[in-house]
Amino acid sequence: MKGLVFGGPGQKSWTDVPDPGIIDPRDAVIRVDTVTICGTDLHILGGDVPEVESGRVLGHEAVGTVTEVGDGVTGLAPGDRVLASCISGCGVCRYCRQGSYGQCRGGGGWILGHLVDGVQAEYARLPFADLSTYKLPDSVSDEAAVLLADILPTSYEVGVLNGAVRPGDTVVVVGAGPIGLAAVTTARLFSPAHIVAVDKAESRLQAAKVFGADVTVQADGDPLEVVRSLTGGLGADVVMEAVGTPATFELCTALVRPGGRVANIGVHGKPATLHLEELWIKNVTITTGLVDTFSTPRLLDMLVAGQLDTGHMITHRFPLDAIMDAYDVFSRPAQTGALKVALSRE
Amino acid sequence: MKGLVFGGPGQKSWTDVPDPGIIDPRDAVIRVDTVTICGTDLHILGGDVPEVESGRVLGHEAVGTVTEVGDGVTGLAPGDRVLASCISGCGVCRYCRQGSYGQCRGGGGWILGHLVDGVQAEYARLPFADLSTYKLPDSVSDEAAVLLADILPTSYEVGVLNGAVRPGDTVVVVGAGPIGLAAVTTARLFSPAHIVAVDKAESRLQAAKVFGADVTVQADGDPLEVVRSLTGGLGADVVMEAVGTPATFELCTALVRPGGRVANIGVHGKPATLHLEELWIKNVTITTGLVDTFSTPRLLDMLVAGQLDTGHMITHRFPLDAIMDAYDVFSRPAQTGALKVALSRE
Amino acid sequence: MKGLVFGGPGQKSWTDVPDPGIIDPRDAVIRVDTVTICGTDLHILGGDVPEVESGRVLGHEAVGTVTEVGDGVTGLAPGDRVLASCISGCGVCRYCRQGSYGQCRGGGGWILGHLVDGVQAEYARLPFADLSTYKLPDSVSDEAAVLLADILPTSYEVGVLNGAVRPGDTVVVVGAGPIGLAAVTTARLFSPAHIVAVDKAESRLQAAKVFGADVTVQADGDPLEVVRSLTGGLGADVVMEAVGTPATFELCTALVRPGGRVANIGVHGKPATLHLEELWIKNVTITTGLVDTFSTPRLLDMLVAGQLDTGHMITHRFPLDAIMDAYDVFSRPAQTGALKVALSRE
Amino acid sequence: MKGLVFGGPGQKSWTDVPDPGIIDPRDAVIRVDTVTICGTDLHILGGDVPEVESGRVLGHEAVGTVTEVGDGVTGLAPGDRVLASCISGCGVCRYCRQGSYGQCRGGGGWILGHLVDGVQAEYARLPFADLSTYKLPDSVSDEAAVLLADILPTSYEVGVLNGAVRPGDTVVVVGAGPIGLAAVTTARLFSPAHIVAVDKAESRLQAAKVFGADVTVQADGDPLEVVRSLTGGLGADVVMEAVGTPATFELCTALVRPGGRVANIGVHGKPATLHLEELWIKNVTITTGLVDTFSTPRLLDMLVAGQLDTGHMITHRFPLDAIMDAYDVFSRPAQTGALKVALSRE
Repeated sequence: MKGLVFGGPGQKSWTDVPDPGIIDPRDAVIRVDTVTICGTDLHILGGDVPEVESGRVLGHEAVGTVTEVGDGVTGLAPGDRVLASCISGCGVCRYCRQGSYGQCRGGGGWILGHLVDGVQAEYARLPFADLSTYKLPDSVSDEAAVLLADILPTSYEVGVLNGAVRPGDTVVVVGAGPIGLAAVTTARLFSPAHIVAVDKAESRLQAAKVFGADVTVQADGDPLEVVRSLTGGLGADVVMEAVGTPATFELCTALVRPGGRVANIGVHGKPATLHLEELWIKNVTITTGLVDTFSTPRLLDMLVAGQLDTGHMITHRFPLDAIMDAYDVFSRPAQTGALKVALSRE
Repeated sequence: MKGLVFGGPGQKSWTDVPDPGIIDPRDAVIRVDTVTICGTDLHILGGDVPEVESGRVLGHEAVGTVTEVGDGVTGLAPGDRVLASCISGCGVCRYCRQGSYGQCRGGGGWILGHLVDGVQAEYARLPFADLSTYKLPDSVSDEAAVLLADILPTSYEVGVLNGAVRPGDTVVVVGAGPIGLAAVTTARLFSPAHIVAVDKAESRLQAAKVFGADVTVQADGDPLEVVRSLTGGLGADVVMEAVGTPATFELCTALVRPGGRVANIGVHGKPATLHLEELWIKNVTITTGLVDTFSTPRLLDMLVAGQLDTGHMITHRFPLDAIMDAYDVFSRPAQTGALKVALSRE
Repeated sequence: MKGLVFGGPGQKSWTDVPDPGIIDPRDAVIRVDTVTICGTDLHILGGDVPEVESGRVLGHEAVGTVTEVGDGVTGLAPGDRVLASCISGCGVCRYCRQGSYGQCRGGGGWILGHLVDGVQAEYARLPFADLSTYKLPDSVSDEAAVLLADILPTSYEVGVLNGAVRPGDTVVVVGAGPIGLAAVTTARLFSPAHIVAVDKAESRLQAAKVFGADVTVQADGDPLEVVRSLTGGLGADVVMEAVGTPATFELCTALVRPGGRVANIGVHGKPATLHLEELWIKNVTITTGLVDTFSTPRLLDMLVAGQLDTGHMITHRFPLDAIMDAYDVFSRPAQTGALKVALSRE
Repeated sequence: MKGLVFGGPGQKSWTDVPDPGIIDPRDAVIRVDTVTICGTDLHILGGDVPEVESGRVLGHEAVGTVTEVGDGVTGLAPGDRVLASCISGCGVCRYCRQGSYGQCRGGGGWILGHLVDGVQAEYARLPFADLSTYKLPDSVSDEAAVLLADILPTSYEVGVLNGAVRPGDTVVVVGAGPIGLAAVTTARLFSPAHIVAVDKAESRLQAAKVFGADVTVQADGDPLEVVRSLTGGLGADVVMEAVGTPATFELCTALVRPGGRVANIGVHGKPATLHLEELWIKNVTITTGLVDTFSTPRLLDMLVAGQLDTGHMITHRFPLDAIMDAYDVFSRPAQTGALKVALSRE
């Protein structure tokens, strides 16, 4: 079969790889029907995730059809249409027992397209399949479902729930790429009074309005002043970082009110400066996190119930074997306007 | 009367100042019976708290006897023996309504010895007296009570409660000065499995054992290795910073396990480096905070019930007018072995 | 002046009473501009609240204009337009310090129209005015504001927050009178998947749809079956009781899923049967409560921001001196279709 | 092999039953080394748990040695010494994903000695073995470990954690049988100021003192007066029901303070009266629950660390084939003084 193979920093190819099979009794194999590309894949190609070895098939967001299951898999059968989540959970370790599958110590966590071959391929092996896949009802399209593989639970758990958004809050989302837009959409579930989106690109600020932000600010404008004027000078109740740079993180800690929360969602490659000389006295809470996916079943229910409007997230569509083109489009959003790109079996 | 007057960085004197009186109907005036010195007072003298003006009477931790109350004070009368808390609360603003008196927007917060004259004096005016003082039962000594003015609620709220210590946890306290020792003592209330104290001074590590730490580590030893060996390599559930330097804060974020909490108690004058390139994926929570004193009544109840053993905290005693000597002893703990010093009316 | 005076069970009159004045320095006096009637007032007239003495002026929900303030009131001045909340808080007792003003031990709590004269009068004295009134911006009408005196914070705190409604939940509200409808509206702030309203009156079920319920069930239909079919047989995540009878409470505990929550809002005059032989194993949480009004400032902000649509709540309007007629209309909702009635100074 | 077989209400025998074997790939079989009897077993024999069929082997608390594992079991091997927990969890259903194994919808929950054959036998099959057994370190004795099968996690989760015991609280435990005593011991982990034990039997009140209660009251004395006098008339912060009768439950709701919590641990066969006419206004929280066993690994760590002193819980010891005698002793605690009885392979 074909797969998108990492060849070291800056190198990738759509090439022949061995067909996956069952290795552990808890595995399933799927035929990949729809798959997408994540900003994290670009980080891997940029060399920022050194534990990814050359030869690895990338990808951790897919919808597929089960073709084979191991003897220990009890909830799936060949022919089932499933979401393949970015996170696999052994279900038994200390972290999995608390629903923190992203921190699994039993061989799971974020492994697909990272420590084991991923889903940007014609077929893929999914470890711990009972806990790492979700059967899809017919009413949910592949394109809607694939957003539940990573960005919706990530923005909801790591951004909105860690940030503890409450009705009436003023919420700021710094970064209006796909993950920031998903944060805007899922923050709306808690009825904040204001969602302020901050980004450099005007096109992304426009997208933020579509996804539910009521205020948008150019990053090189004056976000501090905008937030102060909205909040009587206090600062925002909740600020989410959805970029992954020191400057944007530091902006977040400047925007938050005393007693407020900063929820980091971004993937960072460098340290940031924490202005403890100002923050020590301010009763702030800062959280970080890889998604745990405990919310995936609930988000899927909400998708079925029509509570999550994700129709504008996928901007470009390709056949699976055009994935090299899709990477090109996805990696140049300023030029292409890409949010998420979808690749589907023809 | 006499008071300890700040004369600008490095300058202080025990000198004549005007007698305090009622300015606002919510004020009370006390005769100071017992007062102590806080590490924050040394920060002020070091020039780290620039909003303290020259001429200010310092001090925010005292026990006294009410001599006069304003017309709006309903819970106090002359002759009452009270704790004067480091935090005053207007009781009406958004923050006070949530018990976050330390963040009061109505003219309170930490004001004593900071924005208004404090309690290192023969008499002191206490704003918002109903919410900022606590009547003391006879069974509680001045020396025990004065620890409730700041260090016990600070370590409990900002350290132990923000850190969410749970039974069976491994807890690390970095810094075994008075506030760190109070954190050790109040963490014990939640029955952690281990409390690891880290400090440079062997004498303070010895004190930490007396206050309830079961493991002690020299700061220039290998705290990371000690904590890893206690926790199967995972790291500590809760780490409290009780020093206030970039290096100790960064040690805390290195010591915490995935999913754990870092509670900053220390007063910082400089920014620290936040290693987001390691922490973004680790589900950590970092909190900061000035004490709110919502716990003071409960801590007082526990003191009365014999649940808090603070008998070893005050190491040196002076008459009030020897406060210049007391500052000298308190500011050289490595030489003097001082934890807290108590000054009392003779 | 005139006031609505309780004359013992079944007895009331709009009659001359003494003008109120300042008794305690924390008091304010208002001229009543808009006032409403609460179901609790009918309970008082029915003899269910025996601590209300004959001669008491009733009423605990009003908007007015300050005419006089005591020396200890710092946040109000004559001429201020304010909401008079049903709950007064001393601000100093153990409960008030935790924002639980409804349980005040310092002379507050629910006292207006209960233990002291209330606001169904031309003028009213408001104890603890700084904590018990809220200045109103011009953009908020009297009719919108008066709903914040009781039913909105009650339904939000005692129903929605105690019930811990979460996005995607199935929520049932038993009783679609004013308080139940307010519970429907404020539950919507947390984006439940379904809100099921249960009532006997078809007109109230229609109202529930306007306020945000997506499913309605006649009480003598089969609410259990409706909820089971919506939830795959499990039961509701959250059930709120908004009637106050044993039968409706017992229905609530039958409707809740294992691990779910029952939030009692109703005022009860009789005990109910708790089916512990079924519930002991089901991990349910049952809460009761008088409103604490900690949420009133936040709800007011949301009203200003247009986040709470309360436009359909007031169904009948009267001049203040027609209050006897208003009671008649309010007490016969099945005939009159009354939800809330508003009385205003002409 | 031999097993203790339920023969319908009032009937039991120690008799030949078929050897258990692997039925599902997630099963393990153990040789039973130490087993105990639960109050729930007496309820079954009393006919209170009608879903238990005649012919069922009883028992859900054991320590054993693995003799065989299914193909899907990854964490156990023959020869492992394990705790067999009263709760089995499929690990995949909605409830298991939240750590609520007791409410498992995937075929687990409390099934041993209830819906499938239990552990009062020479050998036993344990479904979902990876999530339902815990490997034991050598330092933990069988007798200490077997208390973790049910009563310690039950009292801790359903009593202490649901009750949210906090430092300085006044806690009441109604019922000082084994589960109530375990509640006293685990409540101590949160440093309440007072633990009041209530029971009819003086011997059990004496035991409560050994386990950590500082106040004891005869049930036919005046618990209300004792608790009022301890709490300035307010009532207890937390009350735990550990008997399972209407009268004891109603006592609990009378003992709790406004804003307090009642945690029901008892197994009930009849409904109780809930005095909503008094409780509606009191902001109380009432919880029920079957144990979920999410805390079992942490309690095991605490047992290893010496944080739980359970040495006085097992009062009588028997060889396994004397289980009929053991039932007799256990069922007459007033005469025998029995708390828990241990049966061991010789």
